[in-house]
Amino acid sequence: MNATSGTRWQVRETRQIEYELINVDDIFDPHNDALLSMGRVQGGRRFVVVDEIVFRHHGMRLHTYLAQHQIDAHIVPFPGGEVGKTMDAWQGLLRELDRFPIHRRDEPIIAIGGGVLTDVVGFVASSYRRGVPHIKVPTTLMGYVDASVGIKTGINFNGHKNRIGSFEPPARVLLDQRLLATLDRRHLQNGLCEIIKLAVIKDPALFRILEQHGATSLKLAFQNMAARDILDRAIGGMLEELAPNLFEDELARKVDFGHTFSYGLETQHGDQLLHGEAVLLDILVSTAIAAGRGVLSQPDSDRILMLVKRLDIAPAIELLDTVLMWQSLLDRVEHRNGQQRVPLPAAIGDCVFVNDITRAEIEVSINTLKHWMTTTNERIAEC
Amino acid sequence: MNATSGTRWQVRETRQIEYELINVDDIFDPHNDALLSMGRVQGGRRFVVVDEIVFRHHGMRLHTYLAQHQIDAHIVPFPGGEVGKTMDAWQGLLRELDRFPIHRRDEPIIAIGGGVLTDVVGFVASSYRRGVPHIKVPTTLMGYVDASVGIKTGINFNGHKNRIGSFEPPARVLLDQRLLATLDRRHLQNGLCEIIKLAVIKDPALFRILEQHGATSLKLAFQNMAARDILDRAIGGMLEELAPNLFEDELARKVDFGHTFSYGLETQHGDQLLHGEAVLLDILVSTAIAAGRGVLSQPDSDRILMLVKRLDIAPAIELLDTVLMWQSLLDRVEHRNGQQRVPLPAAIGDCVFVNDITRAEIEVSINTLKHWMTTTNERIAEC
Repeated sequence: MNATSGTRWQVRETRQIEYELINVDDIFDPHNDALLSMGRVQGGRRFVVVDEIVFRHHGMRLHTYLAQHQIDAHIVPFPGGEVGKTMDAWQGLLRELDRFPIHRRDEPIIAIGGGVLTDVVGFVASSYRRGVPHIKVPTTLMGYVDASVGIKTGINFNGHKNRIGSFEPPARVLLDQRLLATLDRRHLQNGLCEIIKLAVIKDPALFRILEQHGATSLKLAFQNMAARDILDRAIGGMLEELAPNLFEDELARKVDFGHTFSYGLETQHGDQLLHGEAVLLDILVSTAIAAGRGVLSQPDSDRILMLVKRLDIAPAIELLDTVLMWQSLLDRVEHRNGQQRVPLPAAIGDCVFVNDITRAEIEVSINTLKHWMTTTNERIAEC
Repeated sequence: MNATSGTRWQVRETRQIEYELINVDDIFDPHNDALLSMGRVQGGRRFVVVDEIVFRHHGMRLHTYLAQHQIDAHIVPFPGGEVGKTMDAWQGLLRELDRFPIHRRDEPIIAIGGGVLTDVVGFVASSYRRGVPHIKVPTTLMGYVDASVGIKTGINFNGHKNRIGSFEPPARVLLDQRLLATLDRRHLQNGLCEIIKLAVIKDPALFRILEQHGATSLKLAFQNMAARDILDRAIGGMLEELAPNLFEDELARKVDFGHTFSYGLETQHGDQLLHGEAVLLDILVSTAIAAGRGVLSQPDSDRILMLVKRLDIAPAIELLDTVLMWQSLLDRVEHRNGQQRVPLPAAIGDCVFVNDITRAEIEVSINTLKHWMTTTNERIAEC
């Protein structure tokens, strides 16, 4: 029998997605209208969610800025870190928003903070009245080069990271390098891990810049000119990968390098590991897997390890665990629709996708990595 | 000063939205493969949410159907009515889904039920892993001609209907007229109110068919040929309005006729009023407003009233309340981005949009309507 009978109607529409990421200079300077460059200003309202620590540093200037532009604003300071990424935090924001009614289209929500904050506020914007516009202002390096660039939003649920969320393009992303100045070293390293990811998997020039200027940029909290170069390259590279595949129609994604085993590590050790730190552990294990298969040369895998050392990042390799990482891979298989689709480095700046990683291979690679971590120290000492 | 300085990146993508609504005959007949016509069948899993009452009528056949096709299915019976449209119900479904892992792309969730069920399951599908596909099988008249046709999903929040939700195109909508056979009269009338809306605002031929065959179709639970005609016309008409404006970029929408004052009425009297019943009250008040302005002729407004009488629908006009309806209008103004954009009938099959309804006008129109309801009775008696 035929699947169907009788009438059928076909619905077809093309939807235009469009947004800009813009480097802005001193976003809270009242003469800079970037923050209000979308939506209505005269008589306008803004619901603003801002990271607590950023609010401590810049709260007064933000208040002054909005007051000078006669914006009726409701500013909500919001805690940093994964504690903000819960169902409760999301509902709390929605309740506050619902008490401060905004127009559905021309009074964008403004999210000022790190990746967690822009992820959860993005989901608020995406789900309130089936979507109101939002503007992202990243204030952490992780937010700057990763979370704010694409259109993913999300909260954690049922013990799983980002299990609930949406694809919601921002109205605009405003990038102010100055906001990174107050970050501590650990959070700078956290964001740097995503930049390393990108360099390894697709951008050998960025890798070289990291080798040369990474350590200094860390020390100067990304306020130097070389850091601007690193940031621009990282964002440009992310967009090259994300823009043609905004809704992840293609599930084999280079930017998922470092995001297979990290998923389980983060879920299990969320109290100890920042996202970037989990990603780096994954990068290192994946590098060991690639080297073990002969996909990646020893000199290239050495360069990766040495960069990590040079940036003075100490990955928590004691957390690596075969069972946990195998489970993580199995969950990613559901997420990637039945196949592993794991990106592995094939050279500095190149990658391949594989579908046949075994549990034994993970175990061997963890051991290889642990061995490397000692011998790299020795080799660096020899240099 | 310029809004911006330095580098900017532009992201642009076109997204293709595409889905079909298909009339199917006897959807649970194992020889009919419509229900499994999307996604993988061999070794496939399906998470199925089905209305409790529908499950009582068709559960065994559904089980048999899925078993015969060797589908690993998890079937969740779900309560009907607004009780299912809460944050808790949505989370409960998400938790069940998370315990029954499905592929992200080729194992669509199946939603079998009324408008509430497809709205909440649509939001589950839209928010789980940033979106997994879902198939809608409407089993109420309201679902059939209204909720299942478009791409809105939603749950109630903070005392407001549909305050949280998304635009999420279904993978497919399967329409089986037979499923309406077991509906009681009140729920048939409920869906009929949305059909009346469409007829008044844009389809004079449908209006005539309702005048001629509406009462009989009600009596025969929409199992007659004329009912098929009504259903096809209603769905076709809805799609004419929805398809070019799936994401409500245009906020002046004909299909919002009956959906301005009903919003507050439903929120306040959700225990007494079904959605369609609230919509009908709004239709009648809007008709009185249009007549009061001379936008709609007396004969045309009489025809609307007489159709309602002929279909034996007794609107709960005692619930009409100026303050409540004015508040409802104010909320709709936020929702429609600062303007009322209220559709009013200009003839049978035609409408205009207005932005200047006053509180006094609502009050007068409620009184006019109450007067009409008595005199129409007399006029019908005279016929």
